[in-house]
Amino acid sequence: MAKSQALQTNMDVEYVLIYRFAKTDKATAIAKFEQLVQALASVGLATEVRNGEKHSLLLFVRVASEEHLFGEVYRSRVRDWVHGVRAAAPPKETREALENEPLYEAERLRIIYQLITNPVSEGGAGITPKEDGWKEVESIFALHDHEYNKDWIKKWSTSYFLTTEDLDDIRNRLGEKIAFYFAFTQSYFTFLVFPAVFGFSAWLLLGHFSAFYAIVNAVWCCVFTEYWKHQEVDLSVRWGVRGVSRIEVKRQEFAHEKEITDPVTGETVQMFPATKRLQRQLLQLPFALAAAAILGSLIATCFGIEVFISEVYDGPLKSLLVFLPTGILTIFMPILQGILTTFATRLTEFENYETHAAYEVALTQKIFVLNFITSYLPILLTAFVYVPFGTIIVPYLDVFSLAVKPFAENEKQLETPAAFAINPSRLRKQVIYFTVTAQIVNLGMEVIVPYLKRQGFSKYKKMQSERAAKNGGTAPDPSLNDTPEEAAFLSRVRNEAELGVYDVTTDLREMVLQFGYLSLFSVVWPLTAVSFIINDWMELRADAIKICIEMQRPIPFRADTIGPWLDSLSFLTWFGSITTSALVYLFSNDGLGPDGSPSSIKAWALLLSIFLSEHAFLVLRWGVRVAISKLDSPGRQKERRERFMVRKRYFEENLSEMSKLPKMAEAGGNIDRESLEEDARRSSLKTATPEDRFWLRQRGWKETTQVGKGYIEKAVVDDAASETKKEL
Amino acid sequence: MAKSQALQTNMDVEYVLIYRFAKTDKATAIAKFEQLVQALASVGLATEVRNGEKHSLLLFVRVASEEHLFGEVYRSRVRDWVHGVRAAAPPKETREALENEPLYEAERLRIIYQLITNPVSEGGAGITPKEDGWKEVESIFALHDHEYNKDWIKKWSTSYFLTTEDLDDIRNRLGEKIAFYFAFTQSYFTFLVFPAVFGFSAWLLLGHFSAFYAIVNAVWCCVFTEYWKHQEVDLSVRWGVRGVSRIEVKRQEFAHEKEITDPVTGETVQMFPATKRLQRQLLQLPFALAAAAILGSLIATCFGIEVFISEVYDGPLKSLLVFLPTGILTIFMPILQGILTTFATRLTEFENYETHAAYEVALTQKIFVLNFITSYLPILLTAFVYVPFGTIIVPYLDVFSLAVKPFAENEKQLETPAAFAINPSRLRKQVIYFTVTAQIVNLGMEVIVPYLKRQGFSKYKKMQSERAAKNGGTAPDPSLNDTPEEAAFLSRVRNEAELGVYDVTTDLREMVLQFGYLSLFSVVWPLTAVSFIINDWMELRADAIKICIEMQRPIPFRADTIGPWLDSLSFLTWFGSITTSALVYLFSNDGLGPDGSPSSIKAWALLLSIFLSEHAFLVLRWGVRVAISKLDSPGRQKERRERFMVRKRYFEENLSEMSKLPKMAEAGGNIDRESLEEDARRSSLKTATPEDRFWLRQRGWKETTQVGKGYIEKAVVDDAASETKKEL
Repeated sequence: MAKSQALQTNMDVEYVLIYRFAKTDKATAIAKFEQLVQALASVGLATEVRNGEKHSLLLFVRVASEEHLFGEVYRSRVRDWVHGVRAAAPPKETREALENEPLYEAERLRIIYQLITNPVSEGGAGITPKEDGWKEVESIFALHDHEYNKDWIKKWSTSYFLTTEDLDDIRNRLGEKIAFYFAFTQSYFTFLVFPAVFGFSAWLLLGHFSAFYAIVNAVWCCVFTEYWKHQEVDLSVRWGVRGVSRIEVKRQEFAHEKEITDPVTGETVQMFPATKRLQRQLLQLPFALAAAAILGSLIATCFGIEVFISEVYDGPLKSLLVFLPTGILTIFMPILQGILTTFATRLTEFENYETHAAYEVALTQKIFVLNFITSYLPILLTAFVYVPFGTIIVPYLDVFSLAVKPFAENEKQLETPAAFAINPSRLRKQVIYFTVTAQIVNLGMEVIVPYLKRQGFSKYKKMQSERAAKNGGTAPDPSLNDTPEEAAFLSRVRNEAELGVYDVTTDLREMVLQFGYLSLFSVVWPLTAVSFIINDWMELRADAIKICIEMQRPIPFRADTIGPWLDSLSFLTWFGSITTSALVYLFSNDGLGPDGSPSSIKAWALLLSIFLSEHAFLVLRWGVRVAISKLDSPGRQKERRERFMVRKRYFEENLSEMSKLPKMAEAGGNIDRESLEEDARRSSLKTATPEDRFWLRQRGWKETTQVGKGYIEKAVVDDAASETKKEL
Repeated sequence: MAKSQALQTNMDVEYVLIYRFAKTDKATAIAKFEQLVQALASVGLATEVRNGEKHSLLLFVRVASEEHLFGEVYRSRVRDWVHGVRAAAPPKETREALENEPLYEAERLRIIYQLITNPVSEGGAGITPKEDGWKEVESIFALHDHEYNKDWIKKWSTSYFLTTEDLDDIRNRLGEKIAFYFAFTQSYFTFLVFPAVFGFSAWLLLGHFSAFYAIVNAVWCCVFTEYWKHQEVDLSVRWGVRGVSRIEVKRQEFAHEKEITDPVTGETVQMFPATKRLQRQLLQLPFALAAAAILGSLIATCFGIEVFISEVYDGPLKSLLVFLPTGILTIFMPILQGILTTFATRLTEFENYETHAAYEVALTQKIFVLNFITSYLPILLTAFVYVPFGTIIVPYLDVFSLAVKPFAENEKQLETPAAFAINPSRLRKQVIYFTVTAQIVNLGMEVIVPYLKRQGFSKYKKMQSERAAKNGGTAPDPSLNDTPEEAAFLSRVRNEAELGVYDVTTDLREMVLQFGYLSLFSVVWPLTAVSFIINDWMELRADAIKICIEMQRPIPFRADTIGPWLDSLSFLTWFGSITTSALVYLFSNDGLGPDGSPSSIKAWALLLSIFLSEHAFLVLRWGVRVAISKLDSPGRQKERRERFMVRKRYFEENLSEMSKLPKMAEAGGNIDRESLEEDARRSSLKTATPEDRFWLRQRGWKETTQVGKGYIEKAVVDDAASETKKEL
């Protein structure tokens, strides 16, 4: 009963702070803790403390009074309005504002999180976990809503498609940033239906390397990318976050070099010279080249070894040696990637960006470069080096492996180069590996490995405590002090404290890279989309499970886009138009590649097809963009309606002043004034300036009409007269 | 004296309407005239009528009272603010608003023009010259300010560079749209200094077709285009028109197909189905193809004839026949271009756009295509058809001119194909022709021809009236009725009525096309920029003279950009990266072109250089864009300052409400409340929900600190204890 209740209630806790004092001496730890609790109290948060595991405290936080929270919410909404995120200002009466538009859970959690972490100058408590001053605060997390999580997973696992309401639900619970990931994946999944069906038909009817498939696929990729941009706007309006990326959030890690007076606001701002940052950014170039060189040479080496062993080498231990390159890759690739990612993060930190958004863009770009190399280079090598130049290059591989010679007969070895023929199925096999095997492995790694890890970890803990009990020692089990009523709840909190932090960009990256295979290489194996659609159905559910079970509840951040990944998507679509046309030209003759000698490939024809394909793609993209920009959508309509109402109200308010002016028509007619002004006007004709005299010659519009009438009549007479004369 | 006074005063006239009744019968003409004057009076405009030339009336218009004008100005400024063109709302007191920010002349004229032409539903008089209902209203124009014009031309003709103040001056007089043209041309002129100097050095040191020159030139083109975009924003902020292109002006010619209720505003709006428009827009494709085919075949034919006659043909009359193609082009090209331009206008009208902006974009695109063909195709033909394939194609030209054979000796004629060698200087000569001769001719056409025309016209009129006088007939000279005081003024008005209407887009097009030569072909002849810088210095002055003397005073429209020409500029820069690399590859071997046989050109190398150059350009452009986006400017600062002030004010206004809430710190500390709540809390521990009991265990932050302290101390003790145990 206690357990189910523990799952039912979160004890009204908004956030839990883990305070770990293992590495701090007692006195400092106590002082720091007091400081922490005081800081939280100063921004209107109530606190409770309980024992945590291994020299840590669990500090529970909730708002002291709802009134404060409403104040904060109102302040946040006004800020949104001032930044243009909302069309209309929230009503001035706070209570009314909240009744009109109730808080959703993610908004509530976000605002409390900001209250805890925002700098003191901006009205927050300034608590930044693990950062200077708050090194003891290990993490801040909200508690899972287990009831909701259970329903969520149950619902998703029994439905094929997610509705917009499902996405709204995620947004209300987990915030817009995560909701955007799910919306993107769902949109991508829905869009995949077409290439899956079409790809399957193409696989049956057209075979591989069909130009027709390539064109349809390029159009699809382009439409999907552009449509997602359209949908993103729609969703951001629906969720009321359009433009939040414009609200700049300062990075606390930003180190300023000097302080200047902002010419705009007159405030003192911290500054870092742009030229200095540019110099640092230029380091990206050697970094990208070095990464490409390191990863590229590892991949190329393994590739070379593999080709050599499987297709040239015929010595002893072949069956074992075949696994050598895979082994090397499996061991070294993650290590290298880890090192390079760390390096990329360091480099981005060194570039010292002022805002979170700029930092994230810079980091994402670097990560994308790394992933681009590791994901696509092996296939690119096969397609554009191995197949066309295989017969030339492969014999040279022998040079690096002279050691093998003694084992082989001399004759045979010498014959090999001539006997070598490229393996035409290698490319397809590789694409299948990356689009099926690797995806499944990935999915498994995401769900099953953490599960096993968690199981193992809890077993280990149990064993440890049992051993400790056997030894008779009082193991520092924090749960001993728990009151029975809270025990189940606290044990749940302690478990959640051990979980990892969910990073949505990792999942987004995975989807974007998957899209890349479709855009770049699916012409090799049209069933690619079929594999992806199955994988993504599971991926969406697996991610939901991951968030619910294997990770701490994520902090609900706002976003109005999937961010820099959008550029990656566009880039992959563009690059796809190049690779696909090249693949089609190189391999479409028999679906198996050219005869293996580069002479049968016309370089000019290859380049021409790339050139034409790329430009056709650019024209297509322009057309799709124009067409999609014409589409209307509920979100856009909503936005326009809101802006229209605001505009109308302002206009009416401001022009009420206008009504005090005399009406145009009254003054223009001035028929009644005539008699009054008559004499004054006639007399003034003699004395006034030429301008006055000019304008006083005709009084009012009626007289102008009269005079004009006279001119017209006279003109006609003149004409008649001249005609009469001519006749004479 | 009368003459100089006529030049000095405009009699306070704001606009002159020409009412021509030559084709209307007397009664209708009078009725219509009355209607016209009444309509003007109804919007608060005072009128005076005088006799015009040839069955026309001059209807003078000015505002009846300044109060009305101020009302209209205020209304216009509020509309700007509501559309986001102004950051802050104008002060509610009209008089105050105008004192803070006085009217400039162009604003005054624009507002009165809108008052005359805006539909009645929008508060205007709804008078649309030459449109249905107002066919008799031939034109509406403002009168020149001759004093100012004289000063303007004098000042410009004695200065090398125009300052921003000079441009401000134009904006104040002629409105932002024309000011943007001058600003663009001035900016282009300033930027030309670099390629002129560099081009001259390159011409001396590097010769033609230098790859180095090509790269520098591409960078320059790219920087110029991107910098202009940056500058445009700056200028539009300076002139307070940023965002005016967002204010959509309905076209009166728009024909709706059905009326629907706008889902946003609830108003009934006129609608034209987008799909139907798309179908009509698709006609652009056959139009572009047909235009390309017609103009292209004319150009190619003349080109072929010219090449044949000058380089193959050796028969009689050669010296005369050489001029044949030029003659054909001179006669047929303007005719064809005229027909196609009319057709493009018709097509654009048929596409039935709702707003002026959309109409202008659509028309500009078509005009650009036409101009692209006529301006660049001849050079493209020479560079990419004549030179590489000349030896193959030229002999075939003979086939079309068998008629020449009888005149020539048979032997000689048969030898010719073998003897033919391409003329390597043809390309350079052609580029020089287009960048020097054609520019000078153009400038002359713009200034001198209209001058001669005007002179001839006035001579003709004089002769005619003299002849009429000789015949004793009373020629319908309208000036006979003029009072002596007004005679000079009215004669000036009658002269201005005869002048043409200035169209700024023609001048803009000229500049953009000129830029195209620089971007596309200047590698052929690096002195191009030197020619342009001289030409443009004169062009700027000639345009000023043209506006002042040869054209009616233009209506001051607003704009915040040079509009669709910006896209043309970007396109030409991009296309330049393709042509330039191709030219360098084809001709850089000896500066004279390859040996004339296509076999020496490697197609793959050509395509590869194009491919690399284009992508290098795209990367460069991206870099330049990023770099320029970092630049700050006075305009941007001004805008940010204004928005900041508005934001600050709103924020303060709205958050004053917040101060009524209890302060965070007060509630958070809740030390004073402690004793009061103590008992209530203790007692509730037994009865409340688990949540309440959880949160009431520690009272206030001080108790949390105390409890936490206890845990910390205990934990340390535990550790010490276990350590002691281990030691045992």
